[in-house]
Amino acid sequence: MIDTLAGLGDLRVWSVIITIFGDSVLPRGGTVAATTLAQITERMGIKPEALRVALYRLARDGWIVRSKHGRHSYYRLSPEGIAEFAPATRRIYARAPAMHGPWQLAAAEPAPQAERDALARAMTRAGHIEIAPGLYLGSAGSSTPAGADLVRLRGELDTLPDWVRARLGPAALAADYARLEEALAACRDALGTGPPPCPRAAITLRTLVIHRWRRLLLRHPDLPANFFPEGWPGERCRAHVLALHAALSPPAEAWLDEAFGPAPR
Amino acid sequence: MIDTLAGLGDLRVWSVIITIFGDSVLPRGGTVAATTLAQITERMGIKPEALRVALYRLARDGWIVRSKHGRHSYYRLSPEGIAEFAPATRRIYARAPAMHGPWQLAAAEPAPQAERDALARAMTRAGHIEIAPGLYLGSAGSSTPAGADLVRLRGELDTLPDWVRARLGPAALAADYARLEEALAACRDALGTGPPPCPRAAITLRTLVIHRWRRLLLRHPDLPANFFPEGWPGERCRAHVLALHAALSPPAEAWLDEAFGPAPR
Repeated sequence: MIDTLAGLGDLRVWSVIITIFGDSVLPRGGTVAATTLAQITERMGIKPEALRVALYRLARDGWIVRSKHGRHSYYRLSPEGIAEFAPATRRIYARAPAMHGPWQLAAAEPAPQAERDALARAMTRAGHIEIAPGLYLGSAGSSTPAGADLVRLRGELDTLPDWVRARLGPAALAADYARLEEALAACRDALGTGPPPCPRAAITLRTLVIHRWRRLLLRHPDLPANFFPEGWPGERCRAHVLALHAALSPPAEAWLDEAFGPAPR
Repeated sequence: MIDTLAGLGDLRVWSVIITIFGDSVLPRGGTVAATTLAQITERMGIKPEALRVALYRLARDGWIVRSKHGRHSYYRLSPEGIAEFAPATRRIYARAPAMHGPWQLAAAEPAPQAERDALARAMTRAGHIEIAPGLYLGSAGSSTPAGADLVRLRGELDTLPDWVRARLGPAALAADYARLEEALAACRDALGTGPPPCPRAAITLRTLVIHRWRRLLLRHPDLPANFFPEGWPGERCRAHVLALHAALSPPAEAWLDEAFGPAPR
């Protein structure tokens, strides 16, 4: 199961570390030993040297902070790291997409590229999705940036045209999702029929499940299934992910209890 | 009063003829004698030769049809002329703008100019207003052309930004409206205080009032006042026009009764 999920494509080590922080470290106080990270990542095929380089770079770029106690290194997310990565956590473990109707369609005056880009960034931060140049979709309640001079209509959407769906859920992402769906289904089958995984396999596998899910989920907006192309595998993957997370958590948490020592810390 | 309204700018003779058809001829069976047209337009300063040329051109271009009875020429709108000019009639005499909420905002996929222009024409025919390239506003019930693959949201509009108001009601048009408003207000004052106009002055004046109004009204979409820039004079002009039309109609209709002969024809 670990090989199947690890084999879905290159693992970006820095990103796996961020996944571990969100999935296992933040709920346990926020600080993790380098050795714990090494034990979780080793079975994915991540070499100790690759882990060291990734930790060094994350610390150098200000996302994590290292502390030493004797010969042991510990890491925690910096305030910048928490600000950057924590907001996605709610979305990763949510049972359904967060955005819902009634909707708001907002349009900006045609403007030069640079101005449009600046508005697009501000609108994205405010929770809107640019579905065409200068055209934004959001929940009806979403505020728009001060000074953005937009036409705004609040109400109900008709069925979305295919060009919007394809823009929100590109074919390449659907293909990645389909591969993940297949791997997750295979994991559920194996978990259902085979022997239970040992605690260390469980934490590694849970990390991989969340990591693969997170990497695809955050590539598209948090919209209901009917905003994506016909047959979109996103919500089926979500169901697999939540089921696997629930099934793997008892042994995985047992392993984490051991690794993090007695609670409360 | 006639001089004031005639002096607001060049009178396009062909267009004044169309105004007369809508205001006086269609309600009386649709056929008018050349001499009647000459009597209405003479006092506006339109020369007989200019009238003849305009009638000749309108007939040559297929908008009107000439018939002769003895030495007298008669004109009626062709079916093409009726199709082209009659739909505006309802709008010209309406007590309020026809378009109302709830609204619909529709957006097209970004496309090359030629495709966008074709869609804009089809959307305009279907009663939508292009408020930015590829972005259309309409009443929520308006249908969209078959095959137009649009994002459509139905609901309520926030206050419109100034750039949309300026696009819907350009400053040059507001200035023209302000001049018309002043002239119409002066006419109402004069009518209220001076002697009543003779029947022939009344039909000439009523024609001019409707003509000036029609020429400005049809330059902007049929939207409520809050879609236009602050201080927009359109609805104040409408009130003047309707009041003047009502005040001038008894003597003007008396003149038309005379000119068209005993009803029914």
